[in-house]
Amino acid sequence: MNTVYFDHNSTTALNPAVLDAMLPWLQGQHGNATSRHVFGRLGREAVETARKQVATSVGVQASQIVFTSGGTEANNFALKGITANLAASQVLVSAIEHPCVSRAAAALAWHDWQISTLEVNAQGVLDMADATAQLQAQKTGLISVMLANNETGAIQPIAELAALAKAHKALVHTDAVQALGKISLDFTALGVHAMTISSHKIGGPIGIGALVLDKRVDIAPLLHGGGQERGLRSGTENVAGIVGFAKACQLAVETVATRSEYLSGLRDQLETGLRALGVSVFAQQAQRLPNTSFFAVANIDGETLVIALDKAGYAVASGSACSSDSTEPSHVLLAMGVEADLARGAVRVSLGEHNTAAQIAGFLAALKQEVQRLKGLHAVAA
Amino acid sequence: MNTVYFDHNSTTALNPAVLDAMLPWLQGQHGNATSRHVFGRLGREAVETARKQVATSVGVQASQIVFTSGGTEANNFALKGITANLAASQVLVSAIEHPCVSRAAAALAWHDWQISTLEVNAQGVLDMADATAQLQAQKTGLISVMLANNETGAIQPIAELAALAKAHKALVHTDAVQALGKISLDFTALGVHAMTISSHKIGGPIGIGALVLDKRVDIAPLLHGGGQERGLRSGTENVAGIVGFAKACQLAVETVATRSEYLSGLRDQLETGLRALGVSVFAQQAQRLPNTSFFAVANIDGETLVIALDKAGYAVASGSACSSDSTEPSHVLLAMGVEADLARGAVRVSLGEHNTAAQIAGFLAALKQEVQRLKGLHAVAA
Ligand SMILES: Cc1ncc(COP(=O)(O)O)c(C=O)c1O
Ligand SMILES: Cc1ncc(COP(=O)(O)O)c(C=O)c1O
Repeated sequence: MNTVYFDHNSTTALNPAVLDAMLPWLQGQHGNATSRHVFGRLGREAVETARKQVATSVGVQASQIVFTSGGTEANNFALKGITANLAASQVLVSAIEHPCVSRAAAALAWHDWQISTLEVNAQGVLDMADATAQLQAQKTGLISVMLANNETGAIQPIAELAALAKAHKALVHTDAVQALGKISLDFTALGVHAMTISSHKIGGPIGIGALVLDKRVDIAPLLHGGGQERGLRSGTENVAGIVGFAKACQLAVETVATRSEYLSGLRDQLETGLRALGVSVFAQQAQRLPNTSFFAVANIDGETLVIALDKAGYAVASGSACSSDSTEPSHVLLAMGVEADLARGAVRVSLGEHNTAAQIAGFLAALKQEVQRLKGLHAVAA
Repeated sequence: MNTVYFDHNSTTALNPAVLDAMLPWLQGQHGNATSRHVFGRLGREAVETARKQVATSVGVQASQIVFTSGGTEANNFALKGITANLAASQVLVSAIEHPCVSRAAAALAWHDWQISTLEVNAQGVLDMADATAQLQAQKTGLISVMLANNETGAIQPIAELAALAKAHKALVHTDAVQALGKISLDFTALGVHAMTISSHKIGGPIGIGALVLDKRVDIAPLLHGGGQERGLRSGTENVAGIVGFAKACQLAVETVATRSEYLSGLRDQLETGLRALGVSVFAQQAQRLPNTSFFAVANIDGETLVIALDKAGYAVASGSACSSDSTEPSHVLLAMGVEADLARGAVRVSLGEHNTAAQIAGFLAALKQEVQRLKGLHAVAA
């Protein structure tokens, strides 16, 4: 395809080295990893080797990894599974969570939990004063705040939040789906009790992810059955997926420093160009992921611009592509106090390691042209 | 590998034609099917084409298919999601269900449901008189009985059960994971409200499956999030997995009649040989899947025999390989009234289309030899 892919926070192409690692399990080798015969034993070995690799990538032991079908399941598992083993109290989630955290939290209301929202500031970063006040005001069982936001890329003060939560005996879960492979990630240093990661955001296959757990966390399974994953996640182990995820983790973490430097260089080139076009970049003063720019052109609809840019050969996102109801203005921008009208114009560029400076230059030229064209149409229509 | 694979009810090798269908999505093509750009639109197209293929394979419309991460998730989704939208009453599950049904049902106790067990007869077939009595005795919201048992292969009278349930206004779910591709399958003819299928049992990839739903069923999601699958199952769509599953369904259903005939021929050859060895085959008088033989040699431990046969080059299962705690005697055999001692000796052979008459003959010879050897050891030890 000739279209330039600038939507890596949505999903990434499978890394050819990852496919190579998976192929044996998609060709000759197969076997239910629970089976006692040689096919099963080889499957088991592959799964346990992969578990060690994933664990090493995030600084934990193999026994702390529970494989799931992806980030959505891991987030649902964390919120529903941890609260299931606690007396109902308050659960705190930030205003900028992915819907698989916020809607999973909302579902807890059914189980007598009170769901409260943690505010962010104008840069899309958690307001620690608000968090402190809410923890003081009411008994809180669990807090879930993402490590990096998928739309703005803003990195959240999770270690600080975890320290605060500890003083209030609240458990902390963090959705690190967007952080893995983009910034360095160490579960223990964060001080959280549970952390979600997902394979397809880092060049691994779709349909596999993990919940990383502190050993002391008592969590109930979401999927009951054959007792796989130490009884915490039943279902025939997706050997090919797990092997691919592990390979993707290894590659992503090995090269995170150089990739991050390269991507932030491209991103700076992009944002310099955007400023020249008079475009406002959101969360620009926040510590951000190196690959993400979220911006809006005043008086132009983001959806329309995305479609125009797609025709011009650039695949970008309007708001979060992980959500299917993306005609609403981004909840992240609204939480940051951005006007609904400007928020509706939001476009996200999320870069990957195969993107180049020439592509950025081409994109800036195309954006300039499309904006002029759309403003012209607008002027005629008005 | 030189070992002959006789464990197809546990998992199957990926069909090369299925891999071919998946490869474009594991190589050049990628894209979150929710994205609006060209990558996303192609992903969406592939998912919706696949949905139609899966639907056609089981005789329903595309809108009745909800893709899940496999049979375990689909069963959990059915039991937890359907009961979530009903007033708590009784849920009936048969004594021979896979643990991902029985344990998912057990988890409903937490939500005030009363879980009762439906008995089977000595042939491992649902006792309709017991079902009638239990439906008459108490208000029942949901019944879950599998279409074919994974251990014995015994086919259950689901259409009859569904008719009975209708008179009592109970909903019916059936786990058809083992039936798909082995016997002809028509959702509408069964008259059930929900049906589980899984890809890796029919030559498709692990990690994908579906819940087939009657349009009138009101079901709550198990995984909340971005709103994929019409809000019923969130999570980035596993495009490669879905495309592979659809291809596997097509192939499995197209050739079901010839495959079934071929497999039952091999199975009869096997069972004639087993009888000559004085081995008892379970559920032999029941209508069974064409590929499954479950049997036991008196006074020999099934686990030991499986390991010996593995060394001799035959991969078979002891009890259900889908369960990790397989040192317990099979719950299916116990429910059939088989003595625990004999049940502990159970071995399952489940054939696939690539198995041959020569392999069956080789297996029977190896079995005879191993049984003699193990009986000899036993005699010396006694
Ligand atoms: C921050 C964040 N969390 C969770 C998810 C969901 O992960 P998955 O697609 O693996 O279900 C996504 C993207 O889809 C995401 O961006
Ligand atoms: C009858 C039955 N139901 C459900 C399952 C679970 O399906 P999956 O492995 O796709 O989770 C299995 C086997 O694993 C099975 O044999």
